[in-house]
Amino acid sequence: MSETGTGSTSVDDAASWRDHEDVKQLKYRYLRTLDTKAWDDFEACFLPEATADYNGLVFADRAALVDYMRANLGEGLVTLHQVHHPEITIDGDDATARWYLQDKVVVAAFGFMLEGAAFYEDRYRRTPDGWRVAHTGYRRTYEATYNLADLPGFAIKGPGEHTHV
Amino acid sequence: MSETGTGSTSVDDAASWRDHEDVKQLKYRYLRTLDTKAWDDFEACFLPEATADYNGLVFADRAALVDYMRANLGEGLVTLHQVHHPEITIDGDDATARWYLQDKVVVAAFGFMLEGAAFYEDRYRRTPDGWRVAHTGYRRTYEATYNLADLPGFAIKGPGEHTHV
Amino acid sequence: MSETGTGSTSVDDAASWRDHEDVKQLKYRYLRTLDTKAWDDFEACFLPEATADYNGLVFADRAALVDYMRANLGEGLVTLHQVHHPEITIDGDDATARWYLQDKVVVAAFGFMLEGAAFYEDRYRRTPDGWRVAHTGYRRTYEATYNLADLPGFAIKGPGEHTHV
Repeated sequence: MSETGTGSTSVDDAASWRDHEDVKQLKYRYLRTLDTKAWDDFEACFLPEATADYNGLVFADRAALVDYMRANLGEGLVTLHQVHHPEITIDGDDATARWYLQDKVVVAAFGFMLEGAAFYEDRYRRTPDGWRVAHTGYRRTYEATYNLADLPGFAIKGPGEHTHV
Repeated sequence: MSETGTGSTSVDDAASWRDHEDVKQLKYRYLRTLDTKAWDDFEACFLPEATADYNGLVFADRAALVDYMRANLGEGLVTLHQVHHPEITIDGDDATARWYLQDKVVVAAFGFMLEGAAFYEDRYRRTPDGWRVAHTGYRRTYEATYNLADLPGFAIKGPGEHTHV
Repeated sequence: MSETGTGSTSVDDAASWRDHEDVKQLKYRYLRTLDTKAWDDFEACFLPEATADYNGLVFADRAALVDYMRANLGEGLVTLHQVHHPEITIDGDDATARWYLQDKVVVAAFGFMLEGAAFYEDRYRRTPDGWRVAHTGYRRTYEATYNLADLPGFAIKGPGEHTHV
């Protein structure tokens, strides 16, 4: 990934914007369908042969990845995955991106809450149907966990509920 | 909103970038003026007939929206509204956008803290003075609340104060 | 910084996208090298004469800034600095940007955790080697601190560790 911008401009810049934008849309869809548990749409973000490595939690193909998420991130487990600071490089029909993740996981029934951050290093491939994830993985900068028994006044509502203030 | 990027490029891509950028600037200004309580500038982000629906907290026009914010988000109430993952579609002088919100509200005097997330679904309209919000609304993915009495060592400083570390 | 988008398009829009993108890459590199404590790469983001003002914590040049960060943000101190809502203006070889920061600092040994937000107002300069930071500074919207003694079940892992859920 390029560490310096040269400030040069070219006739390819407009096309380059479109590719960057399409790669971002793919990543946002991947994380939106993850956090909303829309597993069929989640699956469609990945190539069948896609691999993943979440700081040592490794998946050899898409089926293994999706099966794990379906089984482990069901109702009653709230997740937030938001990515920032995209550093995207397009190389023909391949692309790479670094992203700075912030994530949360709350499992109220187990009194468990996690907050963390990580740098993703992803690879994408352009297909006739648009960009798809070829590899996704991250390495943690930190990960904090809470015991919600320490916070008896803590309460969490799931999708669609709202405390008006 | 398009779920797949086609990877195609066109002579319209540069103009498209400008429109995306202008829509983003509007949303950032809307949330910056909200969190800094700059209510006149906040009001100027919206069409007079703009509507809002924050997960059931509904406003029929701009005046109702701005009056509510002025009355309920005054000094002593700290807010953070940061949006991520823009999924923007431009259609002539209309635009839509999905955003992934992370927000916080702290009312120290009431020992109250809220952390949540939501997906915005906004509509914008291009006017002679730039893009304006025609509708804004979101649906929560989750919302957590804390009783600060559980955290006797918690302290919060308002605008401009800083703990150097 | 422009408060309204005009919706106009021009032949310069593609070049403008490239400049915006290069400025963003600089800011992301600055914060990534800060949070990963890669001090040589951090230093390379700044002009030698760069100044900084973090809500009153002032540095007169790059050497003073980098020395402070090396001395005060060492191992055992976890930081997160993520910026959002870029409002970038390019003016030839100069640029300014406003960013909406969210940051965290955890010093487990001292039972200390900070969460805050701020608006950055940065200045950048284009050099033969790419854009560099000429001035960086922010003003807080809020800053909250926790005494981790209130959370006996709190635990934090450093870079690379992961709790699989």
